[in-house]
Amino acid sequence: MKRVYNFSAGPAILPEAVLKEAAAEMLDYQDSGMSVMEMSHRSKIYQGIIDEAEKDLRTLLNIPNNYKVLFLQGGATTQFSMVPMNLMKHKKADYIITGQWATKAYEEALKYVDAKIVASSKDKNFNYIPDCSNLDIRDDADYVYMCDNNTIFGTKFKNLPNTKGKILVNDASSSFLSEPMDVTKYGIIFAGAQKNVGPAGTVIVIIREDLITKDLEKYVPIMLRYDIHAENGSMYNTPPTYGIYLCGKVFKWLLNLGGLEAIEKINIEKANLLYDYIDQSKMFYGTVDKASRSLMNVCFKSTSEALDELFIKEAKQEGFDNLKGYRTVGGMRASIYNAMPMEGIKALVAFMARFEEKYGENHA
Amino acid sequence: MKRVYNFSAGPAILPEAVLKEAAAEMLDYQDSGMSVMEMSHRSKIYQGIIDEAEKDLRTLLNIPNNYKVLFLQGGATTQFSMVPMNLMKHKKADYIITGQWATKAYEEALKYVDAKIVASSKDKNFNYIPDCSNLDIRDDADYVYMCDNNTIFGTKFKNLPNTKGKILVNDASSSFLSEPMDVTKYGIIFAGAQKNVGPAGTVIVIIREDLITKDLEKYVPIMLRYDIHAENGSMYNTPPTYGIYLCGKVFKWLLNLGGLEAIEKINIEKANLLYDYIDQSKMFYGTVDKASRSLMNVCFKSTSEALDELFIKEAKQEGFDNLKGYRTVGGMRASIYNAMPMEGIKALVAFMARFEEKYGENHA
Repeated sequence: MKRVYNFSAGPAILPEAVLKEAAAEMLDYQDSGMSVMEMSHRSKIYQGIIDEAEKDLRTLLNIPNNYKVLFLQGGATTQFSMVPMNLMKHKKADYIITGQWATKAYEEALKYVDAKIVASSKDKNFNYIPDCSNLDIRDDADYVYMCDNNTIFGTKFKNLPNTKGKILVNDASSSFLSEPMDVTKYGIIFAGAQKNVGPAGTVIVIIREDLITKDLEKYVPIMLRYDIHAENGSMYNTPPTYGIYLCGKVFKWLLNLGGLEAIEKINIEKANLLYDYIDQSKMFYGTVDKASRSLMNVCFKSTSEALDELFIKEAKQEGFDNLKGYRTVGGMRASIYNAMPMEGIKALVAFMARFEEKYGENHA
Repeated sequence: MKRVYNFSAGPAILPEAVLKEAAAEMLDYQDSGMSVMEMSHRSKIYQGIIDEAEKDLRTLLNIPNNYKVLFLQGGATTQFSMVPMNLMKHKKADYIITGQWATKAYEEALKYVDAKIVASSKDKNFNYIPDCSNLDIRDDADYVYMCDNNTIFGTKFKNLPNTKGKILVNDASSSFLSEPMDVTKYGIIFAGAQKNVGPAGTVIVIIREDLITKDLEKYVPIMLRYDIHAENGSMYNTPPTYGIYLCGKVFKWLLNLGGLEAIEKINIEKANLLYDYIDQSKMFYGTVDKASRSLMNVCFKSTSEALDELFIKEAKQEGFDNLKGYRTVGGMRASIYNAMPMEGIKALVAFMARFEEKYGENHA
């Protein structure tokens, strides 16, 4: 069996221990005589799996009782519609635009509400997080929207925006479970599983109960109503059962590691190792504001596009996959989610040093 | 490793060969050094997987070029909203109500269009398929809606409704790929994967190209637009990559068996074996009209509810799982999808005979 160092931005690397367990249980989960993907979602055994997943997620994030945890489908993109559809009262919402996904969320919200951009880093191709300490939040805004970690650009909020008392909605897809979060600061947190948690096809929503309402426009599709999913324990229809099972395994893996404080420490060490190398390099440089750097997605470039291309090609040959940056940014991006082991970063840094030695200006 | 005979109505039994392959490839798919669930959906290798799945599905169903195949999320329930949202022009739609799912589809459609029930078998708790040869279809109906196989009640259309030239929309979830279908008879066919095709979390939509339009109400969420998914090859956002990979494996398994004509022949043999036993039994009887019997979901009862309960309990002890009927029907339901082997039916019939011998009126 061959395993590469997979720096994909998502779907992304998963803990090898989790994949091994899943493979071993594929034909017979805990003596049930069937695969988890063959189980009725209404069976006791599957209810046990989803309940355990929720319990472990609540432990990891210390989720208060007045928040519901929902395991849904349709990715973060479906949340772009669900958030305005379900939260709108005054039909006004204030958006902080720090990248492509926040932009898409804003554009979708315009269908339903008077969405207003209250901060943006578009002026510098989203290479920094704007100061959000004193935004022009409207008094009757239904919520303030942010995207915590910007996968494409490699930036992350270090301080939460001052919402002036308004509900904060956070697309936390690519930083979810990479560090502790104070859930009580948010009205809604959502995250596509395919970055840090599990396979694509599951989106996790954590929502404060009082924000769940039945007083919705008639046109809201049944599957886009938080109340329906909350009332039915994420089982109004058949949920993505196998994906939830894998998320549950990742939650256990994190708990066994020591929880989110422990993984945060590891993530800081991993990111520092890579950023420190980049910062001293004469060939590579980081593409974002240092104060806004993501711990999950490390974006960097070399001295030329030709060299970037060569780097990506040689890296792949040596077992470092998916290092190409997003097309609107260029260069390289190393996504180093929870499951990327420290030795992957060490190996990458060593490879970068060899590459720099070979092709840098000082080479013989 | 233990394997039971799993008669679950969905999520349901999958071919053991498919599960074995998936387990073997879990950590390293074809020497890529990663699991399919860890792959970027934008990678060449994953594009190869989804393209191959679509190609094989097109071969199986002989899908004409003027139909798009979409792999989406949100289950059939999301289709209940998407169908009216995307097809409405005159805002009128005619529904044939043959069970719970058709009812839910109709209720959802009422949000968007003037939906009218043109046939129903509710009068007899959906235990038959109504005559649909001469329905009162409206001249300006945007489409006629049907649910081919009714999982809960165990009925199936044997002849297609006469739509009088209107577009036919078919929820084929629980009969999909159990027999050949003439795709050209339909405007849209959709099917949740978790019955006959793969794990829950993927829904397959086959749609005639000319029905895909951009002329939609503003409120239609981006993820509920067929045009967006069709333009982006089911990758407007991250699709349920692992589920699609498994669907692809099931398509290959069917092709290797000889395609849909071959599986239909097997399915008829399997169902006949079970129905024939039931029909000659003095203890068990089928709950639906013989002319409307499903090949996939065989619903039956014994002479008393107490005996039903005992049967389900003893069956489980002997390795026949998920035989309990749906709560609104009671009794037993044996879902015998493509992946249920003939020996599973033979074993069940033998068990039923032993049970009848033990508890029947004629027992010693």
